[in-house]
Amino acid sequence: MRDVAVVGAGMIDFGELFEQSFDDMAERAYLNALDDVDKGIDSEDIDAAWFGTLDIAENASSGLGLSHPTGLFEMPVTRVENACATGSTAFRSAVEAVRAGSADVALVLGAEKMRDSAGGLIEGASLEQVWRGRGVTMPAFFGLRATRHMEEYGTTREQVAEVSVKNHENGSKYPHAHYRFTCSVEDVVDSPQVTYPLNLYDCCPVTDGAAATVIVSEDVVEEYTDDPVWVAGSGLATDTVQRGADESLAGFPATQQAAEQAYEEADITADDIDVAEVHDCFTITELVTYEDLGFCEKGEGGAFVESGKPHLDGEKPVNPSGGLLAKGHPIGATGVAQVNEIYEQLRGEAGAVQVENDPEYGLQHNIGIGRDATGSVSCINVLSKDRP
Amino acid sequence: MRDVAVVGAGMIDFGELFEQSFDDMAERAYLNALDDVDKGIDSEDIDAAWFGTLDIAENASSGLGLSHPTGLFEMPVTRVENACATGSTAFRSAVEAVRAGSADVALVLGAEKMRDSAGGLIEGASLEQVWRGRGVTMPAFFGLRATRHMEEYGTTREQVAEVSVKNHENGSKYPHAHYRFTCSVEDVVDSPQVTYPLNLYDCCPVTDGAAATVIVSEDVVEEYTDDPVWVAGSGLATDTVQRGADESLAGFPATQQAAEQAYEEADITADDIDVAEVHDCFTITELVTYEDLGFCEKGEGGAFVESGKPHLDGEKPVNPSGGLLAKGHPIGATGVAQVNEIYEQLRGEAGAVQVENDPEYGLQHNIGIGRDATGSVSCINVLSKDRP
Repeated sequence: MRDVAVVGAGMIDFGELFEQSFDDMAERAYLNALDDVDKGIDSEDIDAAWFGTLDIAENASSGLGLSHPTGLFEMPVTRVENACATGSTAFRSAVEAVRAGSADVALVLGAEKMRDSAGGLIEGASLEQVWRGRGVTMPAFFGLRATRHMEEYGTTREQVAEVSVKNHENGSKYPHAHYRFTCSVEDVVDSPQVTYPLNLYDCCPVTDGAAATVIVSEDVVEEYTDDPVWVAGSGLATDTVQRGADESLAGFPATQQAAEQAYEEADITADDIDVAEVHDCFTITELVTYEDLGFCEKGEGGAFVESGKPHLDGEKPVNPSGGLLAKGHPIGATGVAQVNEIYEQLRGEAGAVQVENDPEYGLQHNIGIGRDATGSVSCINVLSKDRP
Repeated sequence: MRDVAVVGAGMIDFGELFEQSFDDMAERAYLNALDDVDKGIDSEDIDAAWFGTLDIAENASSGLGLSHPTGLFEMPVTRVENACATGSTAFRSAVEAVRAGSADVALVLGAEKMRDSAGGLIEGASLEQVWRGRGVTMPAFFGLRATRHMEEYGTTREQVAEVSVKNHENGSKYPHAHYRFTCSVEDVVDSPQVTYPLNLYDCCPVTDGAAATVIVSEDVVEEYTDDPVWVAGSGLATDTVQRGADESLAGFPATQQAAEQAYEEADITADDIDVAEVHDCFTITELVTYEDLGFCEKGEGGAFVESGKPHLDGEKPVNPSGGLLAKGHPIGATGVAQVNEIYEQLRGEAGAVQVENDPEYGLQHNIGIGRDATGSVSCINVLSKDRP
């Protein structure tokens, strides 16, 4: 099995991009990723590509959705879709193929036009027959997780809000973020209610965006950079509350399982992670993810965020980019942009949001909810400064 | 790089399956694949799964669409989508991961509910703004290929119809086929016109179905069978007429490129292929695919089918299962069912449609058309009786 390294990362500024087509976004993210490679790269060097998109606005139904905007034809292009874990699963699939030897240089591209059909997405996100009829939209599904966590562990509304305060603080400094404002706990708690206990500032926005990453095998890495970031481990899992295996709604078993796989492959523990980009579609999601990833004990997520540890200058910074809450969540692009942020953090090139703990290991995490809102998928990738 | 073998294949009878849910279909195909493993297999043995579906009827938006019907949770499930090459691309991705060492035993499952939303599919299959407004629906897109082939190479309407006659002859013997009738050239030519020159019997039906395959690494193959079928090579490519690279519409460069990759990886030529399951969504598609795969010279597809070579008792049987024309084309399942048929043919277990040339190498091929109807993707997998 060959080691795989990230050597280039590019994205576009996320936001409401009505002025850009899907192809515009994808092309620019792709070109930015190529430009980012230290020693340069030619499009001819790319052996294969992986394409992450939910195709929400019906822009890209196959690998052609990557080929057209990039001009990368006559090569394998695999489209991967895995709910909100689409981008991270595309990255994982590309890594597997480079490890297997079917490509030396691979492109991962994620893109999503969300604003063109957001209504459809939000409405479609819960199954008509059962859940939606009972009011369980996507925010309500996560709201239930929040009320359960508050009930079971005494987590306060203010602790949940702290996640939003932290991520908007980071996002205000992050040049590619959709939202670039700061807010206080009071602002979050007083913002309009969406679904108890989650308010407007507890929810990520509906955002357009694209991101691209270039990965290479150990055999050719020196041609592209002297400062690669390595893939140390990966995990992918599914779970569902229908199995009755969940003892409580206050966490996501899929995240726990994916983390276990990724830590084992990387031969590390949660303690070794120095910086993380995690899935904060809602504030409560990040709070329970601290626990699911093992950054703190079960039930301690509220205390963890209050302690300052996940802050930019803390000992375990989480979502330096502002996370989904500030940066935005263009689904196919989200995981790819997270990988890119970890890559830049480990290279010390994250600018205004560079963490201060000289990170060795970084983790990227997505959780996705199936359309029936009873199951979840989670994908995690761990990058390391040193070769594994 | 480890060698990978197929050790189990299962499917359900394809057809109009209004009485079965998506989960019913997927579960049965999965259980049939497990049952097919010579020395038995436990669901606990499966390390990871790949799931191919276009999710046409909105049954399965992520890996959970595989986890729910199979009960396979707490493991990596990757959903792959690649237009009509979805099933074959899912198989290819699973093979890459097993080669890379991330799984020893992997499941590939493809399923599609087509009858529940066929109108939407057919309508959505060409881009509104440009192509559909000009009448270029999917049959029309392939009809243009047919008229071009007839004009350029003198191919006759009757030769195109021969593909349907052959595949319905095979399908009439194939137990899982949607359509099990025979027809004559006259029947095809006299059937209702869909889009010149293609008539009803030149078009594949709209079919529900599911299929599943179990693959394993060389390290564990002996635990499952003494008669494995090996993966010899794979190819995947995209192309588009917008590039101006096509000299003519009478073929698919994506197929040519994918075939080149697959033959190179398998270290064979087109001459070595003894049996093939190819993409015959329309009769003309199979006819030009003979040429694109190198089974005959460019322009000779009409003569090739007339010669009897691709018939069940010919020297290069094509679509012994009846192909998409008779068996049906439940998109996510199509490529997986083709892999399964090649597996059975190479093991000599294809029953009433067993080819007579004692096949050593078999090929499975899909071509997919992007929603804008100007581009195509092609995925090809080559299996071999002997270990590569």
